[in-house]
Amino acid sequence: MKNLEISTPTKNRLLHLLKILEKSETISITSSQIEEETGWSRETVRKDVAVLGGLGSTNGYETEQLSFAIRKMLGLDKRRRLCVVGLGRLGSAYLNFGAFSGSEFELVAGFDTNVNRVEILSSSVPLYPAYKMAEIIKRLSIDIAILCVTEDQAQSAADKLIHAGICGIVNFAPIVLKVPYGISIRNVFIIDELRTLAAFL
Amino acid sequence: MKNLEISTPTKNRLLHLLKILEKSETISITSSQIEEETGWSRETVRKDVAVLGGLGSTNGYETEQLSFAIRKMLGLDKRRRLCVVGLGRLGSAYLNFGAFSGSEFELVAGFDTNVNRVEILSSSVPLYPAYKMAEIIKRLSIDIAILCVTEDQAQSAADKLIHAGICGIVNFAPIVLKVPYGISIRNVFIIDELRTLAAFL
Repeated sequence: MKNLEISTPTKNRLLHLLKILEKSETISITSSQIEEETGWSRETVRKDVAVLGGLGSTNGYETEQLSFAIRKMLGLDKRRRLCVVGLGRLGSAYLNFGAFSGSEFELVAGFDTNVNRVEILSSSVPLYPAYKMAEIIKRLSIDIAILCVTEDQAQSAADKLIHAGICGIVNFAPIVLKVPYGISIRNVFIIDELRTLAAFL
Repeated sequence: MKNLEISTPTKNRLLHLLKILEKSETISITSSQIEEETGWSRETVRKDVAVLGGLGSTNGYETEQLSFAIRKMLGLDKRRRLCVVGLGRLGSAYLNFGAFSGSEFELVAGFDTNVNRVEILSSSVPLYPAYKMAEIIKRLSIDIAILCVTEDQAQSAADKLIHAGICGIVNFAPIVLKVPYGISIRNVFIIDELRTLAAFL
């Protein structure tokens, strides 16, 4: 509910600011330092931070306090449960991905339509055949799916995930998914990344 | 050289606009349609497009013509050669990735420090042990690397790639690489994607 009050551009800037704060090694940061690093006007920074409630002073913001407030406001202080769908090379890479362990995200299940693969793969995360998706997602209260199926399976997999109660998908399949209002999608398209690189070479 | 004349925000908007144009099924698009889809003011759209030279009329832009001009201006009309570095699950997933074939990107080599893995992996792309990186990158004129090594190997692999002549890296390792001026980096950090999702749930 809180989230509805904040505009999308402000949320995106707060996410970006959080990354800067987490990398920062100083105990405080001024709005002109933020301006220098991001290009946002000091006025914009002040307005965004004002959304978080009375933080900051004429000497800037305390990094720890500001990170904490951003995480709280954006709901990043809650633990979120993940599943991986599609256990080919890409999907199974995320099964053994160290970076989740220090984060607010917990990978609790992997799914694949290939029952054989589910049985053979070695994983510290429990694996299930895809037909159990709805049951397991509900039982484990999984919020987010990492979708690593092939292009032709992606839409039907997304439909099943949403039906089962997933509210966010990180999509690695190179298609734009059609999803109902209220479902969040992040696309990771290698071709888009390469093009952005190429444009700046 | 051409690229130096265009500001980074304009380049980013043109890249975004290109995606919209490529998805569009109509033969023309107006700046108010672009405004509706992106939130950019019509004035901004017109200024960005002006960079491309005399395009558009009072009735809008021809989609084909505008896509072509953007690709040309951003250097996306050139073919670029890629390599994958680190042939674990993630890296080897990209060896057999269909989406490169219809694109301007050609994957021409894979590298891994594990000579055994290089010999055993089945791939339509030639694979080489990592000690041959400098030689092969120069010989095949490879521009861009997809970096899929572990976190602790990423910086030293990046150093070697840059030394060998690579000018862009798509980095999947969860660390911020230190690279000299003029080298472009795109980070694909699953944790950042998940956080952005979580902030919008």
